[in-house]
Amino acid sequence: MSYVRHNIERMTPYVPGAQPPPGASVVKLNTNENPYPPSPRVAEALAGFEPAALRAYPDPTAGRLRNVAAEVLGVKPDWILPANGSDDAIMMIARAAGAPDREIAYATPTFTFYDTQARIEAAGPVEVPYGEDYALPVEALAAAGAAVTFVASPNSPSGTLAPTDQLAELAERSSGLLIVDEAYVDFADETALPLIERFENVVVLRTLSKGYSLAGLRVGFAVARPALLEQLAKTKQIYNVGALPAALAAAAMSDQAWKDANVAKVRAGRAELTNGLRQRGWRVWDSQANFLWTRPPEGNAAALHEALSARGILVRHFRGAGLDDKLRITVGTDEQNAVLLAALGDGRSKVEDRRAKS
Amino acid sequence: MSYVRHNIERMTPYVPGAQPPPGASVVKLNTNENPYPPSPRVAEALAGFEPAALRAYPDPTAGRLRNVAAEVLGVKPDWILPANGSDDAIMMIARAAGAPDREIAYATPTFTFYDTQARIEAAGPVEVPYGEDYALPVEALAAAGAAVTFVASPNSPSGTLAPTDQLAELAERSSGLLIVDEAYVDFADETALPLIERFENVVVLRTLSKGYSLAGLRVGFAVARPALLEQLAKTKQIYNVGALPAALAAAAMSDQAWKDANVAKVRAGRAELTNGLRQRGWRVWDSQANFLWTRPPEGNAAALHEALSARGILVRHFRGAGLDDKLRITVGTDEQNAVLLAALGDGRSKVEDRRAKS
Repeated sequence: MSYVRHNIERMTPYVPGAQPPPGASVVKLNTNENPYPPSPRVAEALAGFEPAALRAYPDPTAGRLRNVAAEVLGVKPDWILPANGSDDAIMMIARAAGAPDREIAYATPTFTFYDTQARIEAAGPVEVPYGEDYALPVEALAAAGAAVTFVASPNSPSGTLAPTDQLAELAERSSGLLIVDEAYVDFADETALPLIERFENVVVLRTLSKGYSLAGLRVGFAVARPALLEQLAKTKQIYNVGALPAALAAAAMSDQAWKDANVAKVRAGRAELTNGLRQRGWRVWDSQANFLWTRPPEGNAAALHEALSARGILVRHFRGAGLDDKLRITVGTDEQNAVLLAALGDGRSKVEDRRAKS
Repeated sequence: MSYVRHNIERMTPYVPGAQPPPGASVVKLNTNENPYPPSPRVAEALAGFEPAALRAYPDPTAGRLRNVAAEVLGVKPDWILPANGSDDAIMMIARAAGAPDREIAYATPTFTFYDTQARIEAAGPVEVPYGEDYALPVEALAAAGAAVTFVASPNSPSGTLAPTDQLAELAERSSGLLIVDEAYVDFADETALPLIERFENVVVLRTLSKGYSLAGLRVGFAVARPALLEQLAKTKQIYNVGALPAALAAAAMSDQAWKDANVAKVRAGRAELTNGLRQRGWRVWDSQANFLWTRPPEGNAAALHEALSARGILVRHFRGAGLDDKLRITVGTDEQNAVLLAALGDGRSKVEDRRAKS
């Protein structure tokens, strides 16, 4: 007998974006981290954390964090299931609801971890292609009749938002679960969170990795009706959120002003970078996230990715149809954005030359 | 369609041991925590941790921690797969290797999370009862022909060790995986770790929750051949170990002397408590762990559990055949052990009265 299941053996593992060695001097615009530091309250919580408390098991429900999150999200605590990052919530959902006769669907391109999870469960996947404009293919997703439909909104890599009314239509027409992965929602104009009250089959995922600048902490949530969360939680690790992440996440969420200020800076940087790239002839999709989905004018995305990397500027290039000719670029600090634009200087001079002539 | 799989719907969730509210004044001998604090190096690592580092994703392989653990365990780093506590490793294994036609087996009573995992995967479970002496039922487990066999050694709740030669025999006779869960091995006389070199189907699980006094941190490992770990890691969360747990775990493992000193104190306490209870007429199984599996002389385990709880002394009572009449008691500090024995004072006087007459 093989030591693992056949579908595990033949699958390729998820490949995360490259992490430079600690201390490396790079402009890191490849993994959609927030360029600004977390709230000072996180440092305070860290300094005030009693290491001896680590001796005991943490609260398996992360109750204190759940209370803080409930207040921020405006829901009751039992509508929240804390997780070891939203990956953990995605795994719980795939494991609780996915199976060979219960397929997992999503529109592509999107976060490829959904594909990983579907393949682990041998639950499809059913992939529905996004069009050029990355509008949510409601009709095709509803027609798929999947047990679980994942929609990242804002989506990665496209940065585009699925409007709440379209998500409501999809929820209405789905007999299975609709998971709205709002990892990037802090940078967006709207949230689908109100749908959890209207639909018993909707789960909204949140994370502290992006808006709260805490990708290293590993804290996220599933938000849904308590009866559904109770089922999903049956697949959870007993103590999935450690005592330290729970304490620091609660501290971060208690400081909405800090998060909001960083989000405002990122949104301003997003507008600057969008303009700068468009001036250089790039196609840039309207982003509701903290990154841009872009197509360089010469169609030389792979070569440009390498050239930028050689200059210490990391952006993300994905292989595959519809991806090869594009780059996903995280919005950095103003300085980082300027470094990127300066590195693309030739493009600008071309654009400027053309303008001067016209 | 139901929102989750049928086997999820009908299963009951894992129930962790009761955690008293923070600050409650109790003698907590119910969840097998180490009564002594973690190494001062953990506090140093906490104080020296730069909160701004949490902005970025952690190393998905927890490489630095893996290197430290490799040195401690005397294996190469790629023989180690870090996990969010050993629960996380157990989940990865169940998910990668369990299925309806690939059963999960274990001897009972044992850590009931194996049962939870088997039910999630609809992979049996195949349960083989331990006898009165909790000797490993090698024959019956081998005959089960399971895809995955879990053996906790030392086992909970019995505290008994499976000798390495018996585990070797089981590995030899298994066509599936043999998982030796060594959560409590720091308190034992031997480890099955050398089996990973002899057998390609053996995985040894370790945790920092017990010997290192870090149950709240959530760090454990799977240790096995790299080719096998590569398959298991396909089911892992992308960043399963956060930056803080990785840093603090590395600090704790770098201080073997501290851990060894605490282990020595627990082992001494274990001997004292064993003697104290036996003098009171209790049956106490020889323990290789940091807890005792005991049977009170009057067969009144449930009532005693309640009576002790009312006095602020928490021990663990499990319901079910072969469990009802017993209590699992964590070895505490010398003071905590003395408080427990004092609370059972009547037993001692009976024993002493009898002795005085003989």
